[in-house]
Amino acid sequence: MNTKMVFYITGKIISTVAILMLLPITVSFIYSETTSLLCFSAVAISAFILGGVLSLVCKSGNTNIYAREGFIIVVMAWLSVSVIGALPFVVSREIPSFVDAFFETVSGFTTTGASILDNVELLSKSMLFWRSFTHFIGGMGVLVFVMAIIPSVSDRSIHILRAEMPGPTVDKIVPRAKDTAKILYLIYIGMTLAQIALLYFGGMPLFDSIVHSFGTAGTGGFGIKSTSVAGYSTYSKWVIGIFMVLFGINFNLFYLLLIKRSKSAFKSTELWTYLGIVTISVIAICANIYSVYGNLSATLTDSFFQVSSIISTTGYSTTDFNTWPTLSKTILLILMVIGACGGSTAGGIKVSRIVLSFKILARKIKTLSHPRAVSTVKIDGKNVDEDTISSVCIYTMIYAICVIAIFLLLSFEKTDIETNLSATLACFNNIGPGLGQVGPLSSYSGYSAFSKIVLSFAMLMGRLEIFPIIVFFAPRSWKKGR
Amino acid sequence: MNTKMVFYITGKIISTVAILMLLPITVSFIYSETTSLLCFSAVAISAFILGGVLSLVCKSGNTNIYAREGFIIVVMAWLSVSVIGALPFVVSREIPSFVDAFFETVSGFTTTGASILDNVELLSKSMLFWRSFTHFIGGMGVLVFVMAIIPSVSDRSIHILRAEMPGPTVDKIVPRAKDTAKILYLIYIGMTLAQIALLYFGGMPLFDSIVHSFGTAGTGGFGIKSTSVAGYSTYSKWVIGIFMVLFGINFNLFYLLLIKRSKSAFKSTELWTYLGIVTISVIAICANIYSVYGNLSATLTDSFFQVSSIISTTGYSTTDFNTWPTLSKTILLILMVIGACGGSTAGGIKVSRIVLSFKILARKIKTLSHPRAVSTVKIDGKNVDEDTISSVCIYTMIYAICVIAIFLLLSFEKTDIETNLSATLACFNNIGPGLGQVGPLSSYSGYSAFSKIVLSFAMLMGRLEIFPIIVFFAPRSWKKGR
Repeated sequence: MNTKMVFYITGKIISTVAILMLLPITVSFIYSETTSLLCFSAVAISAFILGGVLSLVCKSGNTNIYAREGFIIVVMAWLSVSVIGALPFVVSREIPSFVDAFFETVSGFTTTGASILDNVELLSKSMLFWRSFTHFIGGMGVLVFVMAIIPSVSDRSIHILRAEMPGPTVDKIVPRAKDTAKILYLIYIGMTLAQIALLYFGGMPLFDSIVHSFGTAGTGGFGIKSTSVAGYSTYSKWVIGIFMVLFGINFNLFYLLLIKRSKSAFKSTELWTYLGIVTISVIAICANIYSVYGNLSATLTDSFFQVSSIISTTGYSTTDFNTWPTLSKTILLILMVIGACGGSTAGGIKVSRIVLSFKILARKIKTLSHPRAVSTVKIDGKNVDEDTISSVCIYTMIYAICVIAIFLLLSFEKTDIETNLSATLACFNNIGPGLGQVGPLSSYSGYSAFSKIVLSFAMLMGRLEIFPIIVFFAPRSWKKGR
Repeated sequence: MNTKMVFYITGKIISTVAILMLLPITVSFIYSETTSLLCFSAVAISAFILGGVLSLVCKSGNTNIYAREGFIIVVMAWLSVSVIGALPFVVSREIPSFVDAFFETVSGFTTTGASILDNVELLSKSMLFWRSFTHFIGGMGVLVFVMAIIPSVSDRSIHILRAEMPGPTVDKIVPRAKDTAKILYLIYIGMTLAQIALLYFGGMPLFDSIVHSFGTAGTGGFGIKSTSVAGYSTYSKWVIGIFMVLFGINFNLFYLLLIKRSKSAFKSTELWTYLGIVTISVIAICANIYSVYGNLSATLTDSFFQVSSIISTTGYSTTDFNTWPTLSKTILLILMVIGACGGSTAGGIKVSRIVLSFKILARKIKTLSHPRAVSTVKIDGKNVDEDTISSVCIYTMIYAICVIAIFLLLSFEKTDIETNLSATLACFNNIGPGLGQVGPLSSYSGYSAFSKIVLSFAMLMGRLEIFPIIVFFAPRSWKKGR
């Protein structure tokens, strides 16, 4: 275990977050929010010094990092960023309880969007900005960001990229991890800017456009109104809805489009399955809720918005889907589990794993009735190796174990089973709102501090796809030597 | 596909069920229930003729059966037995709707114990007897029973035994499948007789003792009162409770005890994990509901009874656990999924698969931080081969897909999510009562015919561990040749 290197990179990350706080500082300056200005500055300066000292003390000649260090670094990074990101809320007393502020910040960075705020309108502009900006940073990955901007820390930084990026297979688009990180960020920033422009020129105030685009890009879902985006125009709802679907697509496909290899981009089974699930779900929910609405345009807008919001694990809402009939609620609950594509900013099990599951199932049926037949699983015309198959199966199994464990830990609360189960799925899959008492018009403020901490770790496990958190807490990981 | 052999064995099974109907015929004779006597006789005679003709017409020189035939035979057997078993209810108009009677009979044979009867006291004695007797037959397996009594139909009948017996590993205890079936049945009958005696000498009427022992032996759970076993003495509750735990243990262990190899029997990790889960759950629920009861003895009786009833997937109840606090309900919901040991008469995922899952998880963590380390998974000191590991993973994955599919199909109902989810788990895991509107004091009568058919297939899939049903409905299985 290369402990020095772990703390060196953690230090770098803390400094980077301090620098990123210049943005909310600017916002508090523009809106003349003096308290916020002071709080952000104080936290930023302290963090910058702490980070600087840490990376200076732990600088070492041995920059080798392996899989294990990759996992530990990622968890250290996310925990420290969440603690520091929570401080402005606590210091300014806008969210006085540290547990609440930690929950809110973890929810921001993990792009969950679950909130403990009953009345979000009470926050100052700069705090609202910071809250949504955490979505933007967390979406593509805290470490991917750091790797894109600071000089290469190690030749083996692909281990970090692999531990942080969602989805079963992370390929380097270009040979060097650093360049991959840069290209991904450029696509990400370009799309976010496009969305800001479309919202702004469609009549949404600039501040609102920026904040909602951050929330969409990271598939986070923090809004600035208690009614989420219900109060905005139908045009804005469609822009946000379409961008939520787009940010749920594997970013490698956008890169292929960019370098004019659209043929390979459109050959992706995952893409078409994802779009197919969206379409079928929208149609089913439309048919189910039409009689309640009696208006096709409003039915379609709300159905599409809610489906894209849940499958992309964003969590914005235009209506209280808690009041929808059982079929629609069940579809949304299932979409929560599926999630969007691997290699996107979304959470959930990921469509590629679902596709692979069904192919494994088909093969199993074949070998059951013909035990001696040998057959391979193919995706996009390529053979999938047995290692990938076994990890997808193990991932699904461990996913189920985690869901059950979190659900059990929440059951000490007085809330009902629907609330607890949907809270588990909504946090673990980084969606945000659930059903029942944690529905889109409610918040997580009713849960005890214990449950809030459980759910914070659920969000981290979901965002980092379980294994890094488990490796981090496994005692053997911290032993010296290899 | 050896179609002739499939229909030949199906014919044998139909005739066997006809002969088994002599028992309810005797009961209706004893209680002078003339209508039932006529109905059972008519169905039995027709079935005997049908079965005889079928096995006569399809007799063939080629008795070879392989894995595929094994699956098809099992499904054919269970479907035809359920249809014929349902007829007495329909013909006698005691359950006039065929769908309802089919649901009730599938629930009986699969040892689920879910009922569509709002008032079970209205049934005649012989129908109540038949209903509980289906649990007894289904518990150890319809085909295992047939194999134990009729002359060997094929040298390869282990394929049938393997397709029908629950749990990840079915070993022949003795070299010949027929002898294995006989030994298992002898242990099964011996334990059932012991329970009947204990209940009867403890003051329960003979009819009630027999019926409840059938329900316990098959881990079924059909009672003869709307309040299940709540009305019986504390002594009876403990006898039934302890026998429910016993029938949830792998029958191979009883065999080992019988041949005085108790040392290997008590070395089983699955056994101790199972007993550990029971103990921890009882303690947790006791602590959770003690304040409601205020009486340690009643708290302990109800907690132990409910835990053993749910983990063994029996489904008897002594109280309406629907009114218990969220923690207790959540524990019961999780026990529903776990189920008891492989090789027992119980349903669920099975403790052995859960044990293996955690061992696989532990190995995954090890290889994540040390990718080049080679390590094996061990259970009871023996290495588990990679094929078993991969099938356990695939089974868990497919289990999850099935739960989601059934849950989705039920969502067309007006019932709430808690009801639908618990109905899915209660039927798929062959437990019986769920929560909400299908709780222990309610019935499944509120569901539509469509949902009842969905749930009937859920029960069959659960009992036969999914694969046979999928193979049966896969078009390729019915193609000629191998």
